[in-house]
Amino acid sequence: MGTATAPWKQLLLNALESNSRLKHSSYFQLATVGSNGRPSNRTVVFRGFIENSDKLQINTDNRTHKIEELKYCPFAEICWYFTDSWEQFRISGRIDVIDGSNPDTSKLQQREKSWFASSVRSRLQYLGPDPGLPCISEHPNQDIALDPSTGPVAAFCLLVLDPDQV
Amino acid sequence: MGTATAPWKQLLLNALESNSRLKHSSYFQLATVGSNGRPSNRTVVFRGFIENSDKLQINTDNRTHKIEELKYCPFAEICWYFTDSWEQFRISGRIDVIDGSNPDTSKLQQREKSWFASSVRSRLQYLGPDPGLPCISEHPNQDIALDPSTGPVAAFCLLVLDPDQV
Repeated sequence: MGTATAPWKQLLLNALESNSRLKHSSYFQLATVGSNGRPSNRTVVFRGFIENSDKLQINTDNRTHKIEELKYCPFAEICWYFTDSWEQFRISGRIDVIDGSNPDTSKLQQREKSWFASSVRSRLQYLGPDPGLPCISEHPNQDIALDPSTGPVAAFCLLVLDPDQV
Repeated sequence: MGTATAPWKQLLLNALESNSRLKHSSYFQLATVGSNGRPSNRTVVFRGFIENSDKLQINTDNRTHKIEELKYCPFAEICWYFTDSWEQFRISGRIDVIDGSNPDTSKLQQREKSWFASSVRSRLQYLGPDPGLPCISEHPNQDIALDPSTGPVAAFCLLVLDPDQV
């Protein structure tokens, strides 16, 4: 029972490999559509593929606008430009928003896996002030402590882009 | 009669300056919405501001999908991430699509100005095969010649993003 992967996946993995010296090679831009029918666009970080699939993972905060937008329209397009090799990948698909209230146990496990795969410093962001508000402090999370064994907090959300759902 | 410019413009010019050693610092991602209501996202090149304004210029080919998409929904959002300074600018607004059939003389002049401001090599792309088709040749434009004094060709299109039209 083999799992077929998309022909572009190997090209993308090659691009990641050949641009790996650049930290920003794992960043791409995610476009969504708001309830006003207009596009939004922001930089996010690639958190790997779901095992044996073409599904891309992105971590995000439940309190960001993209969550509301994805409820309105679950379709997104990422634009991934590799600055060293001058390659561009455009991948569109449907996004599954997985927060702590998800009824699917395997999805909750995936979310937990992604939480523990990110650095403690990254996890701290989800305990900080609302990401949509202006920030007065230069280091808003400096007084927050987090036990590294603590599981995903309420604001932590896993987005899974499935390019096969078009 | 001064022209007010947006408060973010100077921050953006500073970012351009501090990232200028990187060729890709003038690239950003442009998100639009298609007639199916889904987002599209691609990398484009910043061609400067319209004089004394906050309006951003982008050159494109009339034969690309984004033209059709902008007819359906003229609103766009650009995401401009500066990889050296870790700064992100998200700018949304309405896009004016200026091709050779535009009835406004001043807009046609702007289009001509943008044509001559781009390199002859860039201009050659607009004489090449349809950008939406697969390309067999490694150097599709190598046999095409262009007199540098020739004005904008039919496929050449100037996009002007006006952040004040929201």
